[in-house]
Amino acid sequence: MISNKEVKLITSLSQKKYRNKHLLFVAEGEKLVLELIKAKYTVENIYYTNMFNYDIEEHLALKVSEKDLKRISSLKTPSKVVGVFKIPTYKKTIEGGLQVVLDGIQDPGNLGTIIRLCDWFGVSNLICSLDTVDCYNPKVVQATMGSLARVVISYQDIEDFIINSKSTVFITDMDGENVYEQKLPKDALLVMGNEGNGIRETIKALAKKSITIPRFGENSKAESLNVATATAILLSEFRR
Amino acid sequence: MISNKEVKLITSLSQKKYRNKHLLFVAEGEKLVLELIKAKYTVENIYYTNMFNYDIEEHLALKVSEKDLKRISSLKTPSKVVGVFKIPTYKKTIEGGLQVVLDGIQDPGNLGTIIRLCDWFGVSNLICSLDTVDCYNPKVVQATMGSLARVVISYQDIEDFIINSKSTVFITDMDGENVYEQKLPKDALLVMGNEGNGIRETIKALAKKSITIPRFGENSKAESLNVATATAILLSEFRR
Repeated sequence: MISNKEVKLITSLSQKKYRNKHLLFVAEGEKLVLELIKAKYTVENIYYTNMFNYDIEEHLALKVSEKDLKRISSLKTPSKVVGVFKIPTYKKTIEGGLQVVLDGIQDPGNLGTIIRLCDWFGVSNLICSLDTVDCYNPKVVQATMGSLARVVISYQDIEDFIINSKSTVFITDMDGENVYEQKLPKDALLVMGNEGNGIRETIKALAKKSITIPRFGENSKAESLNVATATAILLSEFRR
Repeated sequence: MISNKEVKLITSLSQKKYRNKHLLFVAEGEKLVLELIKAKYTVENIYYTNMFNYDIEEHLALKVSEKDLKRISSLKTPSKVVGVFKIPTYKKTIEGGLQVVLDGIQDPGNLGTIIRLCDWFGVSNLICSLDTVDCYNPKVVQATMGSLARVVISYQDIEDFIINSKSTVFITDMDGENVYEQKLPKDALLVMGNEGNGIRETIKALAKKSITIPRFGENSKAESLNVATATAILLSEFRR
């Protein structure tokens, strides 16, 4: 049995201000919860309806009815496990290597997909501008498919970060140079911009290189690629 | 003023069976509606609240109240224009070139993103298995951002299609060869599989080449890439 107070707390975590107040976030689904436990995220509580045999302290795992799980789930089709975890206050950032900087990404699905890509392509560091959507937003957490546990993510003033970085800064721009013809270094900052407005002018001014993915369709009038698919293609180019 | 009957018809078009019955589909938003008109989709009716100056016959454009537009919109934040178009019964397919075959894609967002990618990379032909999500599904139509108007899409028995094709067939598989080390031909069929189950065994058996995007993260345990981001990377490889 989950108390009303508990339900209220857990459902409030869909909002950033309550996540920041309680320093907690929610992840749903057996696989995702398992990944976070394995990655040493601190468990606050795990609610489950069925079998449960993860390696956590017994008093943290609470068997509940399907009805109760439905009350705390944010999914249309509730999964069998809902985990509440502590937001880590510190993650060690790594110097050098391939790093991605996000300038005002708004869509949770896009951020989730980019986190998954950073995991796949071994990006050492994902730096988000302060107005980028929160990575503990439940839709982001679900879209990362567990990659959240393996990618170092930080929120900071990206202008300062870029100024202090020793890596070559690449921005994406429609008028940039053809990415397929570039020599791409091992140590690099790749800056990706907001879905509607692209990269801020103040950030653009700091870039050493401006690159673009050329359009191939003869009759294509596609105006742009989605930011997550563009990130996929560019990370692939840096790594191939 | 829109009649209840009209509202019922338009909202029914969110379901495939009614789209097939009436051979109509819905697109929302000024830009998208404009793209479809430009691409010579036949207009059934355009409903708008504000200004409207597209090049269509006057009796097809209906000025309605915001309240009425809300009744026919499927979006949380209704746009200012809702267009109802005829589903084209015939689209000329093009032989050769780079073609994409989808085996059971279920997620409307994924299909929409793939259609947008096909537009960007000049894919001549997008062939969908009969169990792939319908491209006139409103979520797909919105996600294509107008590319729906420029990509040749057909639904058919993909096994037959592949058997009758003269192009080299590429499938994606975790155990496939590193895509970055392949010579990729101009005429090719690229088969992408279902989000959960991948490509059917009967289809796999028809492939000449099996390719994969290698994982680069040293500590990465990412199990797979999302099908739309994988399509982005592979189309980029074929075109670069």
